[in-house]
Amino acid sequence: MLEELKQSVYESNMALPRLGLVIFTWGNVSAIDRATGLVAIKPSGVEYDELTVDDIVLVDLDGNVVEGHLRPSSDTPTHLELYRGFPEIGGVVHTHSNYATAFAQACREIPAYGTTHADTFYGAIPCTRPLDDEEIRGAYEKNTGTVILETFSEKDEAAIPGVLVANHGVFTWGKSGKEAVHNAAILERVAEMAYRTEQLNSSIKPIGKAILNKHYLRKHGKGAYYGQK
Amino acid sequence: MLEELKQSVYESNMALPRLGLVIFTWGNVSAIDRATGLVAIKPSGVEYDELTVDDIVLVDLDGNVVEGHLRPSSDTPTHLELYRGFPEIGGVVHTHSNYATAFAQACREIPAYGTTHADTFYGAIPCTRPLDDEEIRGAYEKNTGTVILETFSEKDEAAIPGVLVANHGVFTWGKSGKEAVHNAAILERVAEMAYRTEQLNSSIKPIGKAILNKHYLRKHGKGAYYGQK
Amino acid sequence: MLEELKQSVYESNMALPRLGLVIFTWGNVSAIDRATGLVAIKPSGVEYDELTVDDIVLVDLDGNVVEGHLRPSSDTPTHLELYRGFPEIGGVVHTHSNYATAFAQACREIPAYGTTHADTFYGAIPCTRPLDDEEIRGAYEKNTGTVILETFSEKDEAAIPGVLVANHGVFTWGKSGKEAVHNAAILERVAEMAYRTEQLNSSIKPIGKAILNKHYLRKHGKGAYYGQK
Amino acid sequence: MLEELKQSVYESNMALPRLGLVIFTWGNVSAIDRATGLVAIKPSGVEYDELTVDDIVLVDLDGNVVEGHLRPSSDTPTHLELYRGFPEIGGVVHTHSNYATAFAQACREIPAYGTTHADTFYGAIPCTRPLDDEEIRGAYEKNTGTVILETFSEKDEAAIPGVLVANHGVFTWGKSGKEAVHNAAILERVAEMAYRTEQLNSSIKPIGKAILNKHYLRKHGKGAYYGQK
Repeated sequence: MLEELKQSVYESNMALPRLGLVIFTWGNVSAIDRATGLVAIKPSGVEYDELTVDDIVLVDLDGNVVEGHLRPSSDTPTHLELYRGFPEIGGVVHTHSNYATAFAQACREIPAYGTTHADTFYGAIPCTRPLDDEEIRGAYEKNTGTVILETFSEKDEAAIPGVLVANHGVFTWGKSGKEAVHNAAILERVAEMAYRTEQLNSSIKPIGKAILNKHYLRKHGKGAYYGQK
Repeated sequence: MLEELKQSVYESNMALPRLGLVIFTWGNVSAIDRATGLVAIKPSGVEYDELTVDDIVLVDLDGNVVEGHLRPSSDTPTHLELYRGFPEIGGVVHTHSNYATAFAQACREIPAYGTTHADTFYGAIPCTRPLDDEEIRGAYEKNTGTVILETFSEKDEAAIPGVLVANHGVFTWGKSGKEAVHNAAILERVAEMAYRTEQLNSSIKPIGKAILNKHYLRKHGKGAYYGQK
Repeated sequence: MLEELKQSVYESNMALPRLGLVIFTWGNVSAIDRATGLVAIKPSGVEYDELTVDDIVLVDLDGNVVEGHLRPSSDTPTHLELYRGFPEIGGVVHTHSNYATAFAQACREIPAYGTTHADTFYGAIPCTRPLDDEEIRGAYEKNTGTVILETFSEKDEAAIPGVLVANHGVFTWGKSGKEAVHNAAILERVAEMAYRTEQLNSSIKPIGKAILNKHYLRKHGKGAYYGQK
Repeated sequence: MLEELKQSVYESNMALPRLGLVIFTWGNVSAIDRATGLVAIKPSGVEYDELTVDDIVLVDLDGNVVEGHLRPSSDTPTHLELYRGFPEIGGVVHTHSNYATAFAQACREIPAYGTTHADTFYGAIPCTRPLDDEEIRGAYEKNTGTVILETFSEKDEAAIPGVLVANHGVFTWGKSGKEAVHNAAILERVAEMAYRTEQLNSSIKPIGKAILNKHYLRKHGKGAYYGQK
């Protein structure tokens, strides 16, 4: 069932190593079918060059395996928490991509230093607070999702489709798994540029509201004029 | 019409991802036929691995589409402003290449720290002032071109064939689209070297006039003796 | 004899350049057959694109060549010292990978700054003290192994399967040569992230014990729930 | 004539882009036949993907073209000066490789921070003084060679087979063009590691004489025991 969804999740997972965002078994992509509430996700600990579309696992929003011969990603509860908390999203990606994870490990948001950032992220990409010891020892992966939702309690997840989890790595999302992968790749590139921007000018400030609005809104929303639509 | 121009613009656009200067739909190359005043340019928001020569759009210097089934790059008004202001150039490139964009985001010029720089750029590669809010909210892409012209009001665009746009990215130019791509690749490499030069010696100064002259002039102008011509 | 071991050692050596961990003749992988006490190892100074499975050398734990037409790696005595001192390990890798070697040259351990590190290394990856002049002029390669054992006298080599040798490079180990290569690749990636983490936040501290435990133990030991086993 | 020499020089030139040491037309390799005093060298300004073995130019030690339909590299006088001043060398390489050129632009030598360096370079890789204006305006390329010889007036060019030219780039040499290319690749890698070593530990000192001796001499000279000879 949901063969098309599984195929697209398989393809999105395979894009991660090709885009240089993961090595070995790191990272995972999921996508949800909102009609049935079923989520297709990478199995846990399988190397990308051995992954096949048949390995993709289907789970419901409570984490029960509905179809598949393998265990789903250990990060599945984080994905599910995001699907429950962000009802408009259709896909979620988790990576430990290089520069973005350095920001996460530094417990720092990525400031919006330029239009490359503003084209996709409408402001700083936030970093969650670290989980406390109880949250870590308890339902850790679910709590990782919860602290992301907490971080976005006063932000718009459609306008900032990604987050750094302190000490850990990156989660991005989008209307589909494919769009979430796209956002993960851009987040990594933006992190790389921000890293060097600060090395070149330690007193640099984020870009102003006018240029942030201009670039974000020329690609998103009713007045958008970028692309072919 | 202008099939040769469109073919060369197509090939120059395809060189951008191959040279590592762009990902996804970022960046664009155009070239002008000065006889007709027509400009061939990449369509807006098309991924490089889907781009074909038939997608290249022809516009006149006022931005009217003369031929093509797609909308031209949203950066077209910047290209046109450069063709109007720099009457000798034949091609323009826009990228968000990594190191160069870090300089742009840091609102800093790239100083001429060595002969790799001087072989192509006859002095520092300047960074524009940031656009003000009115310029951003108005004809933003055209104003981006205007601030580049302003930056070159007392510089020779033939001798310094590229610029950083503050908070944004890179524009380069040349006698053709191909030459502009070549300059974009060298600008990125020069930015990378300048970045590390400063990390290694925070009190380093730009190279002197004698060595700048030697390297630039052994490749350009009447006394050039580099290459086969 | 031990054709399977030699084949696996050959394949593990060939993985080093493919993973970007070595160039030219740098680096080497060995694996031990604990039943016979024989070690299969790369020959000294052979380039990877010329290496064949027949070039793999078999030595005993005293370093005597038991089979092979070439001299074993000059680092063989270090490998043997590790096999003698760490009786549970089955494979050893030596590299001069880029970021990890920078830490080694800086005479610094790699702090555990995030979960990418904790997934594989249960705490900081230590750096040995520099060898003294007598140790260098004497049985240098054996003494390199001895100082690694000294560094781990109060650490668990199964939980921290790698070390930096001061001024020199990296040794990792594992249950097999393949696992040791895997650990070498992760150590390099972790070093890269740690390097940038410090550049982004010079006052950052290692992660807490709770998150270190959570990530290490979800992949290792009796309570592990990562992967398919 | 000297077909074998031209073939090897062609192959060595082609190795430069493959090893990531040059882009476009940058860099060049030459090799000398000491019996005839003839030098085979890359032609000036030819792109690597268009270069053929027939394009290789033969010049004598005074720079006269003896064979070839193209002009020799504009850096030919530097190569010739090195062949005259270092009578034992058989090949010369010039690159603007990334990290090494950053050191050259920073006007800094590369300190010997580890055994990767010591395996090939018996001490710091020096940086020349900048040429003065008269030297630049005069026989610039020849003077570049002369200042290299001056830098090595009290050093052994066999033990330190490379140099940084201030504000410019890298020259390496060896018994053959192939060995010089090998040294150029190692010099770049060593520069990369040294760069990061300093970022990780700003008070780090070069390695001691004992470890420098050990590593250099286990690969070079009468007591060498690395490799198969």
